Amino acid sequence: MQIITLTTDFGSSDPFFGIMKGVILTICPNARIEDITHDINPQDIWQANFVIQSTYHYFPKGTIHVCVVDPGVGSTRKPVLIKSKDYYFIGPDNGIFTGILEKENVTDVIELTEKKYWLKNVSQTFHGRDIFSPVAAHLASGVKLDSFGKSAKKEDLVKLLIKKLIKHKDGYSSTVQFIDHFGNIITNLPSDNVSGEMHGSIRNRSFEGLVSSFTEAKQNKLTAIKGSSGYIEIFVNKGNAAKVTGAVIGDTVEVKYCL
Amino acid sequence: MQIITLTTDFGSSDPFFGIMKGVILTICPNARIEDITHDINPQDIWQANFVIQSTYHYFPKGTIHVCVVDPGVGSTRKPVLIKSKDYYFIGPDNGIFTGILEKENVTDVIELTEKKYWLKNVSQTFHGRDIFSPVAAHLASGVKLDSFGKSAKKEDLVKLLIKKLIKHKDGYSSTVQFIDHFGNIITNLPSDNVSGEMHGSIRNRSFEGLVSSFTEAKQNKLTAIKGSSGYIEIFVNKGNAAKVTGAVIGDTVEVKYCL
Amino acid sequence: MQIITLTTDFGSSDPFFGIMKGVILTICPNARIEDITHDINPQDIWQANFVIQSTYHYFPKGTIHVCVVDPGVGSTRKPVLIKSKDYYFIGPDNGIFTGILEKENVTDVIELTEKKYWLKNVSQTFHGRDIFSPVAAHLASGVKLDSFGKSAKKEDLVKLLIKKLIKHKDGYSSTVQFIDHFGNIITNLPSDNVSGEMHGSIRNRSFEGLVSSFTEAKQNKLTAIKGSSGYIEIFVNKGNAAKVTGAVIGDTVEVKYCL
Repeated sequence: MQIITLTTDFGSSDPFFGIMKGVILTICPNARIEDITHDINPQDIWQANFVIQSTYHYFPKGTIHVCVVDPGVGSTRKPVLIKSKDYYFIGPDNGIFTGILEKENVTDVIELTEKKYWLKNVSQTFHGRDIFSPVAAHLASGVKLDSFGKSAKKEDLVKLLIKKLIKHKDGYSSTVQFIDHFGNIITNLPSDNVSGEMHGSIRNRSFEGLVSSFTEAKQNKLTAIKGSSGYIEIFVNKGNAAKVTGAVIGDTVEVKYCL
Repeated sequence: MQIITLTTDFGSSDPFFGIMKGVILTICPNARIEDITHDINPQDIWQANFVIQSTYHYFPKGTIHVCVVDPGVGSTRKPVLIKSKDYYFIGPDNGIFTGILEKENVTDVIELTEKKYWLKNVSQTFHGRDIFSPVAAHLASGVKLDSFGKSAKKEDLVKLLIKKLIKHKDGYSSTVQFIDHFGNIITNLPSDNVSGEMHGSIRNRSFEGLVSSFTEAKQNKLTAIKGSSGYIEIFVNKGNAAKVTGAVIGDTVEVKYCL
Repeated sequence: MQIITLTTDFGSSDPFFGIMKGVILTICPNARIEDITHDINPQDIWQANFVIQSTYHYFPKGTIHVCVVDPGVGSTRKPVLIKSKDYYFIGPDNGIFTGILEKENVTDVIELTEKKYWLKNVSQTFHGRDIFSPVAAHLASGVKLDSFGKSAKKEDLVKLLIKKLIKHKDGYSSTVQFIDHFGNIITNLPSDNVSGEMHGSIRNRSFEGLVSSFTEAKQNKLTAIKGSSGYIEIFVNKGNAAKVTGAVIGDTVEVKYCL
């Protein structure tokens, strides 16, 4: 059975993601559909980019990842199908695949233009239903890659301008790239870059680390840990670091080694 | 594999919809269960009616749709199984199937009375578990329609009194029938009824249209578009039209053509 | 197909539960994964305990229940696999299986120590991905129970200290064990213990009962009913009893028979 995952900002109370499932199953009854999330913040392509790049590689090779966070739906942004060595990605070309383009060995990019594989009446507001779901289902059914449209260059795909990590003599200036629902603040500082004791600050609040488990942290203290995504995270044990600090995606996080 | 969809107001944090899945899989291990939503507002039969009628027809023919928004559970309202030419619908007879009765060619209505196909101990508060799930699972397993109870007339089923669209010489008085989680306001004015330029008002706020994609709208301006459900929608580009206007389901939306 | 259910506090907007699905499907492509909930309140082992014990037995025999509400992840709390006569339970030994240990005939407890069945790099913050999901998937694939680690005693497992029901001459002192998303207050007084008329109080608010369906209750009146979980529940018809009373888990509910 071919696996198709869904990542959207359609929320859990609207009919939209149910409709996508129906469209897929009508075209490819044997597809196996797995939800990743439908609760990306509305139109938040930065959050979408983080969630997609954090999740896709845990799925079996050959999985088709459909990602629809699409504030420009119906405008000039292109609908695309990206094939890497091991995975397929389908969605709007608006930056949500920035992390994929960095991490994966992309072999093909197809701009979706072949209307034969879309629903008959294409709306200007719901390409998740009208284009992305049917293309995923036809791909899962065995339709060849180049049938879906014209080849495009991966260099031409839209990429988010993500702030780079800056290395100092005694540490790093890093950036908040995600905040999870526990309030843990995920930086873009790879855990492999640091070890031993460190301290730092975010929004004028200081933290210390590293600890090796959440429960090692002192109560109510902002603390750093090597997080499960491979990056340094700032947390409060049994608390909510994002609420305590007011941190948002894009904030700077200063990290200094202890000498 | 027989598809069974679930639409409920049971929320995502309670054990209720997980229990329904367990009941179904115990009776019919091969059923394929797909969630449409469990986040209908508690006891909101109007919202349920809109979500069901917007979703069901995208699923493959033969799909069994189980819908449990059931404020009258345990009272005199009837549990029913509705068969149309292409689909099955199972749930309480309280108006949630109003749109289905309008749109589908209903061939059979069965009042669920045959306890043989229910769980053994039927509570007065959770028919989703005790009646609707087991009936769906037995139906998916091949039990014949008339085994589940006695035939009823479709004319006797409860229907919501939905305000009719009123046609004027220069436009329409329409009604808000749904608000999605982006805050887009979905009227009951079919997109096919209008074309060209129009303006209108909702809650004393004026809007203009039609545009052909969300991104065409001026910033912060209430704007009309042909929505993906087949009705005119009022939206704010990258904003939330429901919050801006305070609109709720049932509000009047005046629409006038531009001459 | 082997069923694996997931109950977590990972929320619906983060990549975490999608990652667990990917890990499971990579190891055991035929596993059938069913979500129970990912919206347990963050780190609320009491709520988790209630949801798990209310749900597991509705699933087919042989189901593997993976439960990850794990505030002590990475600390000394043990990862365990519990086998009862009919089900498997996998998760942290922190009290979330208290109800299971009371209700099920537990035949085996394995402390998970065999790293061969874990992901290669085990984080200290996400054992749901690194230990519990892969163990569940290998179990579903047919790996024998004793391969996963060393046998442990069920008497040594952590149990929550749940307040006991106290029987009086004229009634009971009971405790709130769960509040559902409708605001219904679920006590720990088994429905089978009571019948006929009763009255009682919670947070200085009085209620009456029993009624046999929600719609029988007077408007805006706190009322008692035999709930679907097998316990007495306090509710407000078309209202929210938890909001009206301010009740929380652990509150005392006094119940007296009417003489």
